[in-house]
Amino acid sequence: MNFGREVLPYGIFSTTDRGRRVGVAVDDGVLDLAEVFGEDFAVPSLNHLMARGRDHWRDVRSRVQGIVDRPLLRTSDVRLHVPFEVADFVDFYAFEHHATNLGRLFRPEAEPLLPNWRHLPVGYHGRAGTVVVSGTDIRRPLGLRSPGPTYGPSVKLDVEVEVGFVVGTPSSLGTAVRTEDFEQHVFGIVLVNDWSARDIQAFEYVPLGPFLGKSFATSISPWVVPLEALDRVPAPPQSPEPADYLRVSDDWALDLTLELSLNGEVISRPPFAVMYWTAPQLLAHMTANGASLRTGDLFASGTVSGEGVHERGSLIELTWNGSQSVAGRTFLENGDEVSISALTASGHALGRVTGRIMEPLGPLAR
Amino acid sequence: MNFGREVLPYGIFSTTDRGRRVGVAVDDGVLDLAEVFGEDFAVPSLNHLMARGRDHWRDVRSRVQGIVDRPLLRTSDVRLHVPFEVADFVDFYAFEHHATNLGRLFRPEAEPLLPNWRHLPVGYHGRAGTVVVSGTDIRRPLGLRSPGPTYGPSVKLDVEVEVGFVVGTPSSLGTAVRTEDFEQHVFGIVLVNDWSARDIQAFEYVPLGPFLGKSFATSISPWVVPLEALDRVPAPPQSPEPADYLRVSDDWALDLTLELSLNGEVISRPPFAVMYWTAPQLLAHMTANGASLRTGDLFASGTVSGEGVHERGSLIELTWNGSQSVAGRTFLENGDEVSISALTASGHALGRVTGRIMEPLGPLAR
Repeated sequence: MNFGREVLPYGIFSTTDRGRRVGVAVDDGVLDLAEVFGEDFAVPSLNHLMARGRDHWRDVRSRVQGIVDRPLLRTSDVRLHVPFEVADFVDFYAFEHHATNLGRLFRPEAEPLLPNWRHLPVGYHGRAGTVVVSGTDIRRPLGLRSPGPTYGPSVKLDVEVEVGFVVGTPSSLGTAVRTEDFEQHVFGIVLVNDWSARDIQAFEYVPLGPFLGKSFATSISPWVVPLEALDRVPAPPQSPEPADYLRVSDDWALDLTLELSLNGEVISRPPFAVMYWTAPQLLAHMTANGASLRTGDLFASGTVSGEGVHERGSLIELTWNGSQSVAGRTFLENGDEVSISALTASGHALGRVTGRIMEPLGPLAR
Repeated sequence: MNFGREVLPYGIFSTTDRGRRVGVAVDDGVLDLAEVFGEDFAVPSLNHLMARGRDHWRDVRSRVQGIVDRPLLRTSDVRLHVPFEVADFVDFYAFEHHATNLGRLFRPEAEPLLPNWRHLPVGYHGRAGTVVVSGTDIRRPLGLRSPGPTYGPSVKLDVEVEVGFVVGTPSSLGTAVRTEDFEQHVFGIVLVNDWSARDIQAFEYVPLGPFLGKSFATSISPWVVPLEALDRVPAPPQSPEPADYLRVSDDWALDLTLELSLNGEVISRPPFAVMYWTAPQLLAHMTANGASLRTGDLFASGTVSGEGVHERGSLIELTWNGSQSVAGRTFLENGDEVSISALTASGHALGRVTGRIMEPLGPLAR
């Protein structure tokens, strides 16, 4: 992947002779920031950089822009790691077409959107400890599956194309973060594949929400794209008008096009700019009750789905719960390779997150 | 509180002239382990001790038992901190009477227990970053409240009496932890008050579960009681027989009596030994899909409620959703002080978790 010189995303890499440290992706190579800027960047996560706040982020980015002509490491010579220590992981449900599609599939006789959906960004906490970096193999989970229940390997293993926002600057317990303070807190974005076992999820999720159907793994891209590198467009209209704490003076969206590939074949191009609840609204909502932010908090958009059939960000939508096949699949089979990538509207690459499905380990191999 | 010399729980304390370090509660004082055992215990969390595994835990406990006659610090001279770095926080729903009571209150026309409840321990992830130590003031959260929704301070602020299990030894991604390996992984227990804003929760919780109604704060006791200090009794029977991965050869429960006080008046004594899903089953379930454990993972029982009216572990149950008052309250008012304590069957104190309700900070004080 060629990142060019506009995006300049940050990651954590190591080589055979260099321990984990901060790197920047430039063109098709990697710039070793520890080599240029010293020991502050010879660290195993971006948390230290992210915790220092927006002025520092701008300063570092501007210094990086001045050294992009230096010699680069070849991507094939570096190993990429989870780029930051994930504090809390929250997953939202902010795309209207996704929520509507899932409502139709799971509750065919009812209104597809639940009554709360247009009043607040519905979300929940996921498992931070099982966030893995792109390229990590994904074991098919076992569990009690719907209908039944019967116990066994999930037979409805799915992907969810998402974008995740990474918190740099923390906030205090008891204080809400306003929508207009978004840029003070959010460092950048990663691409997210929120793997989902639909049959496990369907049986377990009432009344406390998804648990084992999601917690086995969440893959993220190794490169964190600074917010500053991203193009903005106006956000879609909202009706009814949201509560005060969710109002935004400047209702921007990020104009990204995502691409979902299965075994090398592009099966969907979900459009990110149509997200109903904007990223500043997600942040304001998450803290509206006084919940604090920590450096490394990750909050994701929820599945990105547009109106079109080929704009859906999950197999359950693309195959309409397995009633038709896409690229020869209804849900994922062992050995399948999934890749999510993204481009800015101006065509800059923003990274990729990949993963391959492995057969389950026998949990009862007693 | 006098802990005696049988329990010997671990905590993190500091004094005016000693930085954070590991202490053990002995009688009504605190033993400074860094002073006796050296620098390994001059650390700001128990994670290092907990990560070293069961043989080490036993060794340290046995060494502590040999030095309980040394001079102690006075409890009034130490400050107690969150005792470990919370990795992921999972909250279960493992008490039949609690799940039944909430089903009757929220879905009066339907079967109180949902179809999945007797097949698996229902649970979800909470916010690890807002776990606070006993004594921390709790700001009343604001949010969109049911019915309506209207935006404002929660008017149904509640407590949940729970017991939390603290993971020491981690596990690998893709591998399930068996019920019989519970003692290899779980270091000890804390008391938990899972504060809940029922009106916020009621509006937001479909379909992804509780979020802001819970994430504003969860209080835990400062002392972690080692598993070894706790008395066991047989667990209650289960029907239908659970799936293989949830079967236990040795179905023990912990015989604790909890006590819930509101402004100094005891309002409930929830019995812990009646927990339907046992602690080893909770652990096995949480990892059955291959999710890994980290040192510092906290998984809580869910609200402890027995059959009796005075054995219920939340105000929504004790006041039947505000239809009658208990200790002059339906739900919590500003200034109210809540305390949860526990005793073993043999009468040993296991600690206390307290918190006082403060008025909300205006989140829109722009």
